[in-house]
Amino acid sequence: MIDLAHKDFMFITIEGIEGSGKTTQIDAIAGWLAGCGHEVLTTREPGGTAIGGQIRSVLLHPDNTGMAPVAELLLYVADRAQHLETVVRPALAAGKVVVCDRFFDATLVYQGYARGLDRALIRQLHRLACGNLQPALTLLLDLDPEAGLTRAWQRIHSDDAHARESRFEKETLAFHQRVRSGYLDLARREPERFTVIDAVQDPPSVTRQIEAALAAHFSR
Amino acid sequence: MIDLAHKDFMFITIEGIEGSGKTTQIDAIAGWLAGCGHEVLTTREPGGTAIGGQIRSVLLHPDNTGMAPVAELLLYVADRAQHLETVVRPALAAGKVVVCDRFFDATLVYQGYARGLDRALIRQLHRLACGNLQPALTLLLDLDPEAGLTRAWQRIHSDDAHARESRFEKETLAFHQRVRSGYLDLARREPERFTVIDAVQDPPSVTRQIEAALAAHFSR
Ligand SMILES: Nc1ncnc2c1ncn2[C@@H]1O[C@H](COP(=O)(O)OP(=O)(O)O)[C@@H](O)[C@H]1O
Ligand SMILES: Nc1ncnc2c1ncn2[C@@H]1O[C@H](COP(=O)(O)OP(=O)(O)O)[C@@H](O)[C@H]1O
Ligand SMILES: [Mg+2]
Ligand SMILES: [Mg+2]
Repeated sequence: MIDLAHKDFMFITIEGIEGSGKTTQIDAIAGWLAGCGHEVLTTREPGGTAIGGQIRSVLLHPDNTGMAPVAELLLYVADRAQHLETVVRPALAAGKVVVCDRFFDATLVYQGYARGLDRALIRQLHRLACGNLQPALTLLLDLDPEAGLTRAWQRIHSDDAHARESRFEKETLAFHQRVRSGYLDLARREPERFTVIDAVQDPPSVTRQIEAALAAHFSR
Repeated sequence: MIDLAHKDFMFITIEGIEGSGKTTQIDAIAGWLAGCGHEVLTTREPGGTAIGGQIRSVLLHPDNTGMAPVAELLLYVADRAQHLETVVRPALAAGKVVVCDRFFDATLVYQGYARGLDRALIRQLHRLACGNLQPALTLLLDLDPEAGLTRAWQRIHSDDAHARESRFEKETLAFHQRVRSGYLDLARREPERFTVIDAVQDPPSVTRQIEAALAAHFSR
């Protein structure tokens, strides 16, 4: 039991809408943790493995608009199962801090709150596939979707590699608003796990808020 | 209720180990049904849809040997959910007979009996993803795995397009024996649904056995 709890404690996730700054901040998080003497693994969902990368390209291909919602959900969970088994669990077992760009909350929010799939079904499926591994700290980068999409849009146009990953960016603003309020609802339900970060501020200010949350977590 | 039962009645699956003759026989099945005046759709799992084809290439790529068993299971179920939603249900709703080359039993046998994943978990996952749609007739082409693999091996060498689909053909003979006996166990548990066909015989004899099973089914 103690061993399991320890592993969870070293498992940190970063969540938020498209363009909220997750990818921008993850290196700063890793840097702060390394500065405290931790070994760190940063990873992301979907796509943290070779097989996951192939799943990601099915999920995010802009042509795959006819995807059944349940099929989409299962692909996310398949990617996660592969990722947990081959990346996250081995790193936690080796004593590293694992920082993951999106995890279970993203599935709950995108497929549940935003697409309307049954959230109890999503939780049940997740338990079937992934057991009960949970992050102990989730950093939620909170931002108005209009601001986030504007940022993400600029990123697409400055970086062709991202253009392929834009299926979610075709969704309506209302969809992204459901995503944002879904995340905030989860944060209200699990205040011990979530720290909500004001992601409207400039990158160094966001980094400072994140570092304060990390310091609080590791002083527990 | 009557409507649902009717739809199931028109749903036929063909199962069996690699090389048992499923692909060889499916056109004969379709021809027999069309001769009785039915509209027929033949399809297959995995890969009956564009998205499913992409999933299939992840599943069957010979390089993806490090796939976590649960991830593999979820990919099969994702393909199935897409296939059911966009192909099978619409065809049944339009009054067609649907003949599917592999379905739920294949998952139960390959991931359950042969790989050792919990079969109750597989059934539960399937119900979550696919509801309770069931074929009313399952034709099981039964054959010794050594004979099946010899056939499949010859097929690979006569047809390069199949060479990519050979991840299962790398499995041990013991694996394929578990697949065969898993299928036979399912057939013993559900004798009303399954008809076991002796697939050792030459193709025209196999076709005759299948036609007899179809005639018995449609005379009910
Ligand atoms: N705090 C910030 N203020 C302004 N722009 C930002 C900020 N954080 C990130 N950006 C920019 O917004 C875009 C999206 O950021 P990114 O980190 O890729 O978001 P995410 O990974 O959450 O989708 C990038 O072009 C990035 O440079
Ligand atoms: N009854 C049979 N006797 C001998 N060879 C057969 C028979 N049925 C099929 N074959 C051959 O065996 C190989 C595998 O058959 P196929 O229909 O592709 O099997 P499956 O789809 O079940 O894997 C093909 O080369 C096919 O021509
Ligand atoms: Mg990102
Ligand atoms: Mg075949």
